[in-house]
Amino acid sequence: MIQFSPTRLQQIIDTKTKPIGALGLLEKIALQIGTIQQSYTPSIQLPYIVVFAADHGIALSGLVNPYPQAVTAQMVQNFTNGGAAINVFTDLHEINLLVVDAGVNADLSSLQTHPLFKDAKQGFGTRNYLDTTAMPLEKVNSCIEAGKRIVTDIHRAGSNTIGFGEMGIGNTSAAALILSAITGISIAEATGRGTGVTDLQLDIKIKTLEQVYVKHNLNNYSNNPIGLLSCIGGFEIAMITGAYLAAAEKNMVIVVDGFIATAALLAAYQINNTILSNCIFAHTSGEKGHKQMLQYLNVEPILNLGMRLGEGTGAALAIPLIRSAIAFLNKMASFEEAAVTSI
Amino acid sequence: MIQFSPTRLQQIIDTKTKPIGALGLLEKIALQIGTIQQSYTPSIQLPYIVVFAADHGIALSGLVNPYPQAVTAQMVQNFTNGGAAINVFTDLHEINLLVVDAGVNADLSSLQTHPLFKDAKQGFGTRNYLDTTAMPLEKVNSCIEAGKRIVTDIHRAGSNTIGFGEMGIGNTSAAALILSAITGISIAEATGRGTGVTDLQLDIKIKTLEQVYVKHNLNNYSNNPIGLLSCIGGFEIAMITGAYLAAAEKNMVIVVDGFIATAALLAAYQINNTILSNCIFAHTSGEKGHKQMLQYLNVEPILNLGMRLGEGTGAALAIPLIRSAIAFLNKMASFEEAAVTSI
Repeated sequence: MIQFSPTRLQQIIDTKTKPIGALGLLEKIALQIGTIQQSYTPSIQLPYIVVFAADHGIALSGLVNPYPQAVTAQMVQNFTNGGAAINVFTDLHEINLLVVDAGVNADLSSLQTHPLFKDAKQGFGTRNYLDTTAMPLEKVNSCIEAGKRIVTDIHRAGSNTIGFGEMGIGNTSAAALILSAITGISIAEATGRGTGVTDLQLDIKIKTLEQVYVKHNLNNYSNNPIGLLSCIGGFEIAMITGAYLAAAEKNMVIVVDGFIATAALLAAYQINNTILSNCIFAHTSGEKGHKQMLQYLNVEPILNLGMRLGEGTGAALAIPLIRSAIAFLNKMASFEEAAVTSI
Repeated sequence: MIQFSPTRLQQIIDTKTKPIGALGLLEKIALQIGTIQQSYTPSIQLPYIVVFAADHGIALSGLVNPYPQAVTAQMVQNFTNGGAAINVFTDLHEINLLVVDAGVNADLSSLQTHPLFKDAKQGFGTRNYLDTTAMPLEKVNSCIEAGKRIVTDIHRAGSNTIGFGEMGIGNTSAAALILSAITGISIAEATGRGTGVTDLQLDIKIKTLEQVYVKHNLNNYSNNPIGLLSCIGGFEIAMITGAYLAAAEKNMVIVVDGFIATAALLAAYQINNTILSNCIFAHTSGEKGHKQMLQYLNVEPILNLGMRLGEGTGAALAIPLIRSAIAFLNKMASFEEAAVTSI
């Protein structure tokens, strides 16, 4: 058996009937996925988007979010009813969807048997990190394990490509705190408007998060993702962190999208810094801090549509383009095959 | 019957279960297509990409292009054999493809009965505009009429969405000349590398096109697109100009992509300056002058993948995103329908 060589894969890309490099980013994606799969004929199998939903104690304070906490549970119902943006995009683009209750502050037991729903509830929302830690350390670890199990099951079912979305009123605050603690940028730089925040509300949000940063000495957590998630994390964020780690262990193609899910990637990256070789970045969020995250990771997403919805919507929209990259590699004729003159 | 109102359509978009504006550019696309179709439930029907192929006399000089002219005909064969990038992308994304011989310098009569092929040959390549005009004025008009007929037929078959691609060795030169003549920017600013041009070749290309500009007094053609196309146009470019005009007349959604096809849009825009309301811009080309064209038209494409292949490939890749915009509008639940708390 001949060993896979990325150089050989690049040669195959270069002999397709097009000028060298003329398919731009799609060529890089084809090279990356071929390299992940160690294959000259890579494939996207049974792609999945998993949306993790959970509530945040801070949201009950009303200091960081205009939408009430009840919206998290309402949106989970909307997901299982097929009415949300992520439903529309996954249906249209033939992507599998799973919605996980990571810790919503509502009884969702009526959804137990719903085919899109997975119960992995870690509690009825986190504690308010204005008062205490969001969750004990052991809860962070059990979230990570739960996230790993979910991805492992999906991989076992035949999927080799996965993206993560989230729903959780107040979770842009946790994401901004993670960004600030890990990269050292200020809370003001890391904090965006989240969902529908006005100028005045943004000001209050920043001041509140600065207070949280000081209270928990988050400057001590730049290299301690488990501790950081314990202080200010969300169940969904910790679970996505585990989900990334399992996806990398299973050598899946990971489609990264969204401010909150990328915050979870920052945590996962500190635990396994080789994870980026499996990651394709889907979309540059309109949420302010996301660009800072992408810059920190030194990556450039496929799309820049000014979206800021979460749910994994950017990942769902990037998948047709990722499939296009795989398709050109597998199906375009070479200059030789097509009898086209090369230079 | 209640009259369509864009304001009402915007309200419908704003009541979907997402923060206002959170789907970014997709919301603008939904609004635009709804407005084009005067419908709150717009649709993309039988989308088509039409690739117009033709040869350019200048290409025989070897001064502007490293690939030999024979590649145009070879690529038409590659299109009809299904081996080119545009075949792969239109197949994957369920888009109809038609390849038009607008004036290739080869006998393509063996393709007459091929289902993807349309014979509209205006000649065996244009004349070399280093020596004389590329084509007589009446030929420009017959190209425009041919382009119109092709689009009218496609519209009659039930299509409401169309994009145009091209193949023609040497045609980036014509596109650069059109850009320079219409917008007034210099040849050096308008001229890019086209397909595989080295630094030295680029220098020769610019000097050659500067000479062409002076010879034909192209500064006199800033408002005379028919005359301009007669001087330096290509059969495919003139035909695409007509194709745009018919697509606008039929009120189709026009997906604009590529340096050469956008040059044809500049010409069509001078003939019908309301055409832009029907245009969605697919992709910012890696070819230098394309950004200048987009700036002149004051438009922003959906994608920026660094591609520079032509063939309508960017249009084909934008269509899944355009479909996503239509799908969210038609299928997402409103806050009221989903019983989600709005703010």
